[in-house]
Amino acid sequence: MSKAVPSEPILTVAEIEKLLEDVFPQLHHGGRTVMVEQVAPMAARLRLIAHERHLRPGGTVSGPAMFTLADVGIWVAIFSHLGPEALDAVTMNLNINFLRKPPHGDVLVDCRLLKLGKRLAVGEATLFSEGAAEPVAHAVGTYSIPAPRK
Amino acid sequence: MSKAVPSEPILTVAEIEKLLEDVFPQLHHGGRTVMVEQVAPMAARLRLIAHERHLRPGGTVSGPAMFTLADVGIWVAIFSHLGPEALDAVTMNLNINFLRKPPHGDVLVDCRLLKLGKRLAVGEATLFSEGAAEPVAHAVGTYSIPAPRK
Amino acid sequence: MSKAVPSEPILTVAEIEKLLEDVFPQLHHGGRTVMVEQVAPMAARLRLIAHERHLRPGGTVSGPAMFTLADVGIWVAIFSHLGPEALDAVTMNLNINFLRKPPHGDVLVDCRLLKLGKRLAVGEATLFSEGAAEPVAHAVGTYSIPAPRK
Amino acid sequence: MSKAVPSEPILTVAEIEKLLEDVFPQLHHGGRTVMVEQVAPMAARLRLIAHERHLRPGGTVSGPAMFTLADVGIWVAIFSHLGPEALDAVTMNLNINFLRKPPHGDVLVDCRLLKLGKRLAVGEATLFSEGAAEPVAHAVGTYSIPAPRK
Repeated sequence: MSKAVPSEPILTVAEIEKLLEDVFPQLHHGGRTVMVEQVAPMAARLRLIAHERHLRPGGTVSGPAMFTLADVGIWVAIFSHLGPEALDAVTMNLNINFLRKPPHGDVLVDCRLLKLGKRLAVGEATLFSEGAAEPVAHAVGTYSIPAPRK
Repeated sequence: MSKAVPSEPILTVAEIEKLLEDVFPQLHHGGRTVMVEQVAPMAARLRLIAHERHLRPGGTVSGPAMFTLADVGIWVAIFSHLGPEALDAVTMNLNINFLRKPPHGDVLVDCRLLKLGKRLAVGEATLFSEGAAEPVAHAVGTYSIPAPRK
Repeated sequence: MSKAVPSEPILTVAEIEKLLEDVFPQLHHGGRTVMVEQVAPMAARLRLIAHERHLRPGGTVSGPAMFTLADVGIWVAIFSHLGPEALDAVTMNLNINFLRKPPHGDVLVDCRLLKLGKRLAVGEATLFSEGAAEPVAHAVGTYSIPAPRK
Repeated sequence: MSKAVPSEPILTVAEIEKLLEDVFPQLHHGGRTVMVEQVAPMAARLRLIAHERHLRPGGTVSGPAMFTLADVGIWVAIFSHLGPEALDAVTMNLNINFLRKPPHGDVLVDCRLLKLGKRLAVGEATLFSEGAAEPVAHAVGTYSIPAPRK
């Protein structure tokens, strides 16, 4: 089922950023907020730049902002390995654990693909504040990848 | 562990809406978007008014907007039964399944509490489009309720 | 994606029990333990007969026994609607919340299908002890249904 | 909330195995099946010895057996750091993704604690077959740790 899928990214960070701007402009609505930092075999790292609108009272990044970061991060990991055809991948299931109140400042996400098939991918996302050892949140998501149009 | 917890809401819809405006004003940032429609024993119903900023390309409500609606809905169900002291309840875990692309228009959420203890609550949220029988998403969340300050 | 799928069961309880014995005999290894009580549109009810080997110290049904009951229950709900071809459905994801220590005695599970497509199904399972109002556990599972062999 | 919790195991593998035999003898019901291989800071590795009764038709380890291995593994990781008082930790939530059909043979689980507080712990479990690079399943679990008896 999952044979012949490349286990190395086939898109560069610059190519991924360009695709994100084209297909998902609302991600940067109100100022650029999510940056792709790195892609690696079966992995991706993204950064959420803490803007006022992601904050909850107390100055910490909100739950929905962390959900979005995990979700976008795993999706980026998937299509960076499969190419632009996989931009249509959709989230089927996402399970998130909030572990600690994040401190002020940017939040990073390290995503790792646990399975990368042609029709289905599963990835995990560990969120942490820059410089901190302990994660602030952790998510696992399942994605359906539509068959390529002929 | 969960004895002596009221199984009927002790706040009215008007009282809940007032509390939401006071403690969570950013929910209505850019225009009122979430309305509490009804509370009932161990349950609550909310409505997400579809604004431009919740939409994905194609005009459907985004995943993060549905995550937020489910999360806020279960939280409202909890504190409507426990009172304002439970406003500090925090999401520990949320698992969401996206079932169908939501059509244009408002999304409703029906929340049901599966467990309502003094320190811990678990609820489920079924999201659907007005008038449609089949749900567009389903979530289950676990919430930690801080001990009251003395 | 989910068009033309029957929303009523097409197998009777007796037919389902017969299939379970044929394809999953180890379910009854050491004595009959799971019984199908009822199927209904998009739903199924099963019973776990409490045997010594499902019990934890203290006499309550174990976590793995509840996991199995939820998993088998949703699977039965799926193939009772799709027919024997769907016996090959496999669990992709299962999220379970343990809510209360179950008392001694049988555990029932009420399963409800949230989505029933040709290749994918999502169902929820509410577990409770006979006669009790409050659930002991709740699970949501996602199932992949293999394409029929030609 | 999570201050002053040791981040190194305080029990040896031999002490853990002894405790498991004392408090959870049914784990080895019908022959020894789960072995603790290693504990490390915020981590534990266990092995499921493939017995006939864990197998599904086709000879692969069953879903419930993998669920049990993940659940026991995270629980072992928790009490190996907190000591015998934490043997009473109970699973509140477990989310498991089944990624690939496991081949014949033993299954190993690598557990990592994402959060280790005094009352609450969260851990993840990656299951794989000996010698294989790709995981067969992945789970995340939340555990409640009862207050010590006085």
